[in-house]
Amino acid sequence: MLNFTFYNPTKIIFGRETIKDIAAEIPQGAKILITCGGDSARRYGVLAEVRAALQDFAVFEFSGIEPNPTYETLLRAVRDVQDRHIDFLLAVGGGSVIDGTKFIAAAAHYPGDPWDIVASHGGGVSRTIPLGTVLTLPATGSEMNPTGVVTRLSIRTKFVFKSPLLYPKFSVLDPTKSFTLPAAQIGNGVVDTFVHVAEQYLTYPVAGKVQDRFAEGLMLTLIEEGPRALAEPQNYDVRANLMWCATLGLNGLISAGVPQDWATHMVGHELTALFGLDHGKTLAVLLPAMLEIRRDEKRAKLLQYASRVWHLDAGSEDERIDRAIAKTREFFESLQLKTRLCDYGLGAEAIPLVLEQLKAHDMVALGEQRSVTPERVEKILGRCL
Amino acid sequence: MLNFTFYNPTKIIFGRETIKDIAAEIPQGAKILITCGGDSARRYGVLAEVRAALQDFAVFEFSGIEPNPTYETLLRAVRDVQDRHIDFLLAVGGGSVIDGTKFIAAAAHYPGDPWDIVASHGGGVSRTIPLGTVLTLPATGSEMNPTGVVTRLSIRTKFVFKSPLLYPKFSVLDPTKSFTLPAAQIGNGVVDTFVHVAEQYLTYPVAGKVQDRFAEGLMLTLIEEGPRALAEPQNYDVRANLMWCATLGLNGLISAGVPQDWATHMVGHELTALFGLDHGKTLAVLLPAMLEIRRDEKRAKLLQYASRVWHLDAGSEDERIDRAIAKTREFFESLQLKTRLCDYGLGAEAIPLVLEQLKAHDMVALGEQRSVTPERVEKILGRCL
Repeated sequence: MLNFTFYNPTKIIFGRETIKDIAAEIPQGAKILITCGGDSARRYGVLAEVRAALQDFAVFEFSGIEPNPTYETLLRAVRDVQDRHIDFLLAVGGGSVIDGTKFIAAAAHYPGDPWDIVASHGGGVSRTIPLGTVLTLPATGSEMNPTGVVTRLSIRTKFVFKSPLLYPKFSVLDPTKSFTLPAAQIGNGVVDTFVHVAEQYLTYPVAGKVQDRFAEGLMLTLIEEGPRALAEPQNYDVRANLMWCATLGLNGLISAGVPQDWATHMVGHELTALFGLDHGKTLAVLLPAMLEIRRDEKRAKLLQYASRVWHLDAGSEDERIDRAIAKTREFFESLQLKTRLCDYGLGAEAIPLVLEQLKAHDMVALGEQRSVTPERVEKILGRCL
Repeated sequence: MLNFTFYNPTKIIFGRETIKDIAAEIPQGAKILITCGGDSARRYGVLAEVRAALQDFAVFEFSGIEPNPTYETLLRAVRDVQDRHIDFLLAVGGGSVIDGTKFIAAAAHYPGDPWDIVASHGGGVSRTIPLGTVLTLPATGSEMNPTGVVTRLSIRTKFVFKSPLLYPKFSVLDPTKSFTLPAAQIGNGVVDTFVHVAEQYLTYPVAGKVQDRFAEGLMLTLIEEGPRALAEPQNYDVRANLMWCATLGLNGLISAGVPQDWATHMVGHELTALFGLDHGKTLAVLLPAMLEIRRDEKRAKLLQYASRVWHLDAGSEDERIDRAIAKTREFFESLQLKTRLCDYGLGAEAIPLVLEQLKAHDMVALGEQRSVTPERVEKILGRCL
């Protein structure tokens, strides 16, 4: 097992009718900015519930944080925070709203050019505005980690930033708030969570037995509950399991002490920044091809995955790996995500553009072995056509 | 799934040669009291390593915290802390030292009778001295939870107390520090961890699928690694897995959102307080009998346990349960713990004494269903003879 530090001070408040508990988590007298996305939080009553819980506070609102939150939009919120002297941020939404709110939290008191926060991947952050979240879309795990992803439209760049100062103080996870989500968002969320787990598990063995069991436990649960979430949208326990999986899939627990990959995410971010593909869809396309092309460096873990997650124990090693990858692809498709670039109107002409952006972003040696060079990405994308 | 709050701010610093990192975790200028047990921490050089890491601090030492730390001993440490104006406690040892140090942390500034802290199970704690830990014996999970257990010899009482103010600020987990442990302590520790998991898992199903998978993952790892830890005491990865299992087995994660039992522990505490039996041994004796007598209320989870942990899928329900319980007993015995009261020189005469103490301590309706009355404990102890 590798050495590690694990630290995660976010308080999770999980279950039915928990939004009413948020007032006790926010410092008395705080001036709060609620941040949110489109109008679904308002339409389905979540915003009203949040506002009712905060009636003893001065509350302002910034709406319109888009999926793949943009630097351009977020800068407007930063000015709002500065103008109103906001001292607590409350993100109401999914990963995009929470990620965007982390950027706002980091940028409001940042002395330099706020793009530096993102360009340095969070390096220079020394003072932030505290934030809490009310999660409505289980997927990214942002509700219990110190990481955000922001897109700058003007330069087609989607970058990750993180700082230990950006853990939410608390996150409210009420699974009933996910009942009204469209099927496409549930499917994207399940795939996003599954690929988060894969990025931390499908690498090479380092005798991290608990980490492996936990990762497999999350995958097994997602495989059971994902399709049920589409078929039974009001099933509380199904949505509760998905929500808790999404949080635990990226809160630092299963990656503690083991190698990590993240090549699928990094190449996926370029596809989103260039062509506007949903994040979950980029992952559904890329992961099977990544595993096919990189099967030798991942062989031991792929065989473990085949056995423990898909119960594939017969046949040669390569047959088991092939079947595990095929099962993974079928699972994504059962969640109504297509797994080929052509399904999204992209062909071979996209490949050089992605390679160019990866080089521009210095992403030339990705993955747990630093072996995913632009040449290998070219092969991987070739498999995605 | 049940509603829950999960909050755990302890920073875990895990791996080889990590003791040297503790200075950065303690406020500059702090006056530190190192607390420890017998002389093994000194004999094997752990104390010297800790002291070397703390050379820039004023450091004092309180040694002699015994297994099942006693109120009487800890009060002496409390006076030391008060006399020396200590402002940071560093526990170096296993669960007993850490539990005892939590009591010291809570009692040093407590305005009333310090026994009230324990008698009220931590209720009145409002100010504590911050503490860190250097773990040498994986077992209790105390290094990442807010709970302690203290024994008052004069009234033969062993009580649990907890307060959110008692999470360690950090815990250093260096598996190499467990290489020199006697086999008996390793065996006790593995059983303690396994029974912690059982107390949170073997109840009744509430669709907590992730919690179940995580609990099973810990059990499977303990079953693989426990006997190896005895056979290969210098195997780093084995000890690392046991250490991480022990911490994750009782840090609030696997109990979040599911019912909990703890009857085995509560009855076990009475056996320790009355007869001085090691904590791990009380659990090894009690758990199989608890599961036998309470099989109907635990039936669904026992069958799941039989299948997923012991791979027992053939035969009638009761046959599978019987075999799972027998496997559990064999596992404990493979770790060199005896599983009958007679193995420890106790007979039927012990039973009324235990029942009397349970009643005196108001422990008359234990377990996840509050169904473990003194009458049932009598039956359970009868099975342990």
